[in-house]
Amino acid sequence: MAEQRALIALDWGSSSLRAYLMDDAAEVLESRTSESGASRLSLEVAAVDRPAIFERHLRSLIPDWLASGLPVLACGMVGSAHGWVEAGYLECPVDIAALHDRLVVVEGSGGLRVRIVPGVSRHPVGAAPDVMRGEETQVAGVLARDARLANGVAWIVLPGTHSKWVKVEHGCIVSFATRMTGELFELLRSHSVLARSLAPSTSFDADAFERGCAAAREAGGADVARHLFGVRTLGLFGRVPATSLADYLSGLLIGAELAAALVDVEADVPLVLAGDDRLCDRYRRGLAHFGRTCDETIADASALGLWRIARAASKSACRPSITS
Amino acid sequence: MAEQRALIALDWGSSSLRAYLMDDAAEVLESRTSESGASRLSLEVAAVDRPAIFERHLRSLIPDWLASGLPVLACGMVGSAHGWVEAGYLECPVDIAALHDRLVVVEGSGGLRVRIVPGVSRHPVGAAPDVMRGEETQVAGVLARDARLANGVAWIVLPGTHSKWVKVEHGCIVSFATRMTGELFELLRSHSVLARSLAPSTSFDADAFERGCAAAREAGGADVARHLFGVRTLGLFGRVPATSLADYLSGLLIGAELAAALVDVEADVPLVLAGDDRLCDRYRRGLAHFGRTCDETIADASALGLWRIARAASKSACRPSITS
Repeated sequence: MAEQRALIALDWGSSSLRAYLMDDAAEVLESRTSESGASRLSLEVAAVDRPAIFERHLRSLIPDWLASGLPVLACGMVGSAHGWVEAGYLECPVDIAALHDRLVVVEGSGGLRVRIVPGVSRHPVGAAPDVMRGEETQVAGVLARDARLANGVAWIVLPGTHSKWVKVEHGCIVSFATRMTGELFELLRSHSVLARSLAPSTSFDADAFERGCAAAREAGGADVARHLFGVRTLGLFGRVPATSLADYLSGLLIGAELAAALVDVEADVPLVLAGDDRLCDRYRRGLAHFGRTCDETIADASALGLWRIARAASKSACRPSITS
Repeated sequence: MAEQRALIALDWGSSSLRAYLMDDAAEVLESRTSESGASRLSLEVAAVDRPAIFERHLRSLIPDWLASGLPVLACGMVGSAHGWVEAGYLECPVDIAALHDRLVVVEGSGGLRVRIVPGVSRHPVGAAPDVMRGEETQVAGVLARDARLANGVAWIVLPGTHSKWVKVEHGCIVSFATRMTGELFELLRSHSVLARSLAPSTSFDADAFERGCAAAREAGGADVARHLFGVRTLGLFGRVPATSLADYLSGLLIGAELAAALVDVEADVPLVLAGDDRLCDRYRRGLAHFGRTCDETIADASALGLWRIARAASKSACRPSITS
């Protein structure tokens, strides 16, 4: 049977663009990646000039796919105030199955139409607001992959530069929290006084990682600024090998995240990880250190999430279905 | 009465060198500053070449002072493994009045003799070691300024890139802890995703600072990675003006430090701040937010500390006293 090209799905974040050509059974036929994330494309560019820059970049990455006239659906920072067009935020609780109703359409030249998934915001009383953009689509993909999660209560953890802990109930995002764990790790590893202590890692040192987790857990996730200085002194006195200090630091930061986040996570609610395999593996180890098992790890949720949202949109609008 | 030049005191840290010409009554007659801190001077320089580089730099900053043949005493990172010569660490508890016995001497050309104060280390069981280098001399200065502190129990807080909380009992450093609060602030302000949200501060916004403190206090100093993302969202939704976000961030990080550090601080023990005026002012506000008063703020403790150590050394060695 010949392939049925059905959708161009774009996971267009701050630092990269991942484009997927998908068929009518939600399979990825081909994918292409570019380092031109929304932050880079918008840097020092006036808002009025941005649409042309985003369109040109997209056309240069997937000219052949676009020529076919397939529907295009995008998620991520492409819909932020610094993106192609601002796609706004839906306020929690957000029904994932209704996301398709709130897509924002941007019209390019030559009939190009790109739909963008809005972000999700949360405004808790007496605390700072929170936002996600792109992760709502990953959540849609996770729920599409596992019906049990879609029909009950679950925590979906999306590790990354800005990790997200998302609570879903019966297909709705009811709460979530963002932590800058991945960004802190990169900042400290590359730009802080610790950079001088850390030697390039040769292989993952699980013991060093777990020592970091343990230090963070014992402090209940507090006093991170003190533990960070410990990275330096453990190296200085040869208590952790220089090549393992990055893993210790990673354990410290992920451990501090887990210590704080798990306070809100009920013991009997399923917890799944979605994202990069190696990073999910660190979180799984960290969770085990806190006596918590992870029920499942799901990779590449964005493409499936975009596909689900696109299909719902096509059905809802009574436009020709992308499943034809 | 003509001035009695008695000592060249060098506070030679990672990022700068402060040189003081002092008289026999511990007054600073003149001071000079250079941006050539020990880290910068040692960058990509082989250990064997470092002494010549440090000496050359010192000679270029204070040629006239050195020509007088006055005693020279230095503290700080100049005595680290990346410094002029490694001055080692004394292990806690350390009697401040005995520091002068453990000076390391480095001999330059033309009869130049520079004595360097050793650092202090702490090796708590089951936790990362801790070190200071330069702060032991500030503590000596603080104790010299206030006899009540020297004869009792006190906490001396030295805010900075790496803040130190030092507990002294009867003139001894019995415990201390380092927190990378200042460095985290600079990293986040300059290199993180938050840099895009923060506008240059026009004047200190005490309200924003205290809101940051409050957020950290309510979380007991935990979940900093989450509160950091709040800096972005508070800006995004206009809840804190962009020009005040740096003060909010400062409050958040200092608040997290205080929440953790104050756990160890007894209510009836005097607490003093020593260091940069504006930074000490932030800590004083933060302490007040935690219901804690600061008994005193002491500036320029390094010069006095060096002077005290030099005087004790000259008396102890029965060398001609620097007070004569």
